[in-house]
Amino acid sequence: MDTKELVSAIEAELQKQVSRLDAPRTKPFHEMLTYHMGWTGEGAGPEATGKRIRPLLVLLCASACGASWQLALPAAAAIELVHNFSLVHDDIQDNSSKRRGRDTVWTKWGAPMAINVGDALFVMSSQAIIDLKESYSSDVVMKAAEILHNTCLDLTRGQFLDMSYEERNDLGVEDYWHMISGKTSALIAACCQIGALLGGADEDQQEVYRSYGHYLGLAFQVQDDILGIWGDENVTGKSVASDLVEGKNSLPVLAGLEKKGKFAERWSQGPIQPEEVGEVSRLLASEGGLLAAQEAAKQMTDLALMNLREADPQGEAGEALFELTNRLLGRKQ
Amino acid sequence: MDTKELVSAIEAELQKQVSRLDAPRTKPFHEMLTYHMGWTGEGAGPEATGKRIRPLLVLLCASACGASWQLALPAAAAIELVHNFSLVHDDIQDNSSKRRGRDTVWTKWGAPMAINVGDALFVMSSQAIIDLKESYSSDVVMKAAEILHNTCLDLTRGQFLDMSYEERNDLGVEDYWHMISGKTSALIAACCQIGALLGGADEDQQEVYRSYGHYLGLAFQVQDDILGIWGDENVTGKSVASDLVEGKNSLPVLAGLEKKGKFAERWSQGPIQPEEVGEVSRLLASEGGLLAAQEAAKQMTDLALMNLREADPQGEAGEALFELTNRLLGRKQ
Repeated sequence: MDTKELVSAIEAELQKQVSRLDAPRTKPFHEMLTYHMGWTGEGAGPEATGKRIRPLLVLLCASACGASWQLALPAAAAIELVHNFSLVHDDIQDNSSKRRGRDTVWTKWGAPMAINVGDALFVMSSQAIIDLKESYSSDVVMKAAEILHNTCLDLTRGQFLDMSYEERNDLGVEDYWHMISGKTSALIAACCQIGALLGGADEDQQEVYRSYGHYLGLAFQVQDDILGIWGDENVTGKSVASDLVEGKNSLPVLAGLEKKGKFAERWSQGPIQPEEVGEVSRLLASEGGLLAAQEAAKQMTDLALMNLREADPQGEAGEALFELTNRLLGRKQ
Repeated sequence: MDTKELVSAIEAELQKQVSRLDAPRTKPFHEMLTYHMGWTGEGAGPEATGKRIRPLLVLLCASACGASWQLALPAAAAIELVHNFSLVHDDIQDNSSKRRGRDTVWTKWGAPMAINVGDALFVMSSQAIIDLKESYSSDVVMKAAEILHNTCLDLTRGQFLDMSYEERNDLGVEDYWHMISGKTSALIAACCQIGALLGGADEDQQEVYRSYGHYLGLAFQVQDDILGIWGDENVTGKSVASDLVEGKNSLPVLAGLEKKGKFAERWSQGPIQPEEVGEVSRLLASEGGLLAAQEAAKQMTDLALMNLREADPQGEAGEALFELTNRLLGRKQ
């Protein structure tokens, strides 16, 4: 299955949703949204839009359950709008000045405007999900909306945990799973569950798709954590130093801290300096932080694939789901 | 009709909705929301909660159209949650440290947490509206959700205009109506339209209720603008100086600027100082700013009452609607 056609259709649907603000008086407001979405302004283009993995999952799951993917487009857009709302607000919260190599919305227009841009993207996600009514019964639309909203509350829970963890030094691996279940995994789980719902799957099968997405999200995040410390800067496009220097409570770090060895001792003494990164990352690896994360990534990947096999996705979309999963989790076919 | 019973029921429904975050790991997060809602923390109590006018309008309109008001409670809560989401984000955007005499959420917990608190209140409004499904068909719930979401986009439009107007000095009275239609009036219009929908009114009647709310919102805002310059500090609880000193683009100010007289000259020379407030407010009144606003308030009040009469609300709730309207607009019975 050529996913390029799907990605083009997703982009067109997103532009349609965001065009709700394309009116004379709100033109500059509309431009803030199209800039963030990667369509306009400096650096606009495919590199700025991101890969649209989440909406793609919605369409593939719907198609793999037997529906035409076109019908699920409003839901795909809704999920991507939620993702982008959270990015805009995250960037303010984290004081991040760059995203995908471009200035963030708050850097360009200030935090007050950026809060409002995030709010508008958030509203549009709710409007997009209701657009499903053109092809689905009100009961199905409401179920999809319910899943979407519950997921958004999970996102705010994950965001709360993430922010409150910054000030704590007593965290363990268990806290990590709670945080990323909300922050990363909930939205990917929702993609797959909503896709299955719109594909006509029954409730049990929807749950299997949801589990697939849940573990896919966890595996992806753990992998990202590993790359954030030991990754190749040329591949990931961000400084490998950043996660240690930023003091991020990633899985390798929390696993390392639980060992209460030399890494934990150094971590407790204050921020890691850029020039120490090589030494501290080697220390963390030697005390088992890397291995623990690799094992967790493998477990989550296995669970994702197990659930995907159980879901038994059909046709070309089913094949594309396996391909995408393997690609995201860095596995050979 | 004793509206106290309704207000108590609204409070209970709001607490139920917000309790979605009442779990061990998110307890401090839940407390941020209950603090903002006026239920916990320093200064908690009836003075901190606000008057819950908006949800009351939802219940009264539903009841005046023939439904039991209890059925509309989730929608009433949804509207009040939207209102409170916008207050939390507004306070960050306006850099306001106090609301109803208490520290704002961002003052207590910082802007990053406050953004997330607003987001959570926003999500909960969408969840609350879907709770209508216990008493209404999916078609009605979807219609209510659609009105709510469209209104929220109007709020972001109004907020954008409000913030972008701060930097402009070429505004006229027409710009004012656009801004407050989004910022103030849209949500009050939605209260009445959703109330009528849930009361079983047909589409035409829903529109009449909507118009009533629209003009009620406009009248209320214009009145607030007048009080913001010439009001009695002891009655309004905020410094009468504030609107002029803050440089707020209120209706009297914009009407005064259009005269291009001495007020406009002073306004263009920079911020009004607290010690000038008496003189500048007298200047604005002498150049017609007060009269123009009083006339506009009267027009909007007349339009609100005309639409309310056309809506012909029934029973005790109908009487309560007239009473509430007269009270809000400062008119004798």
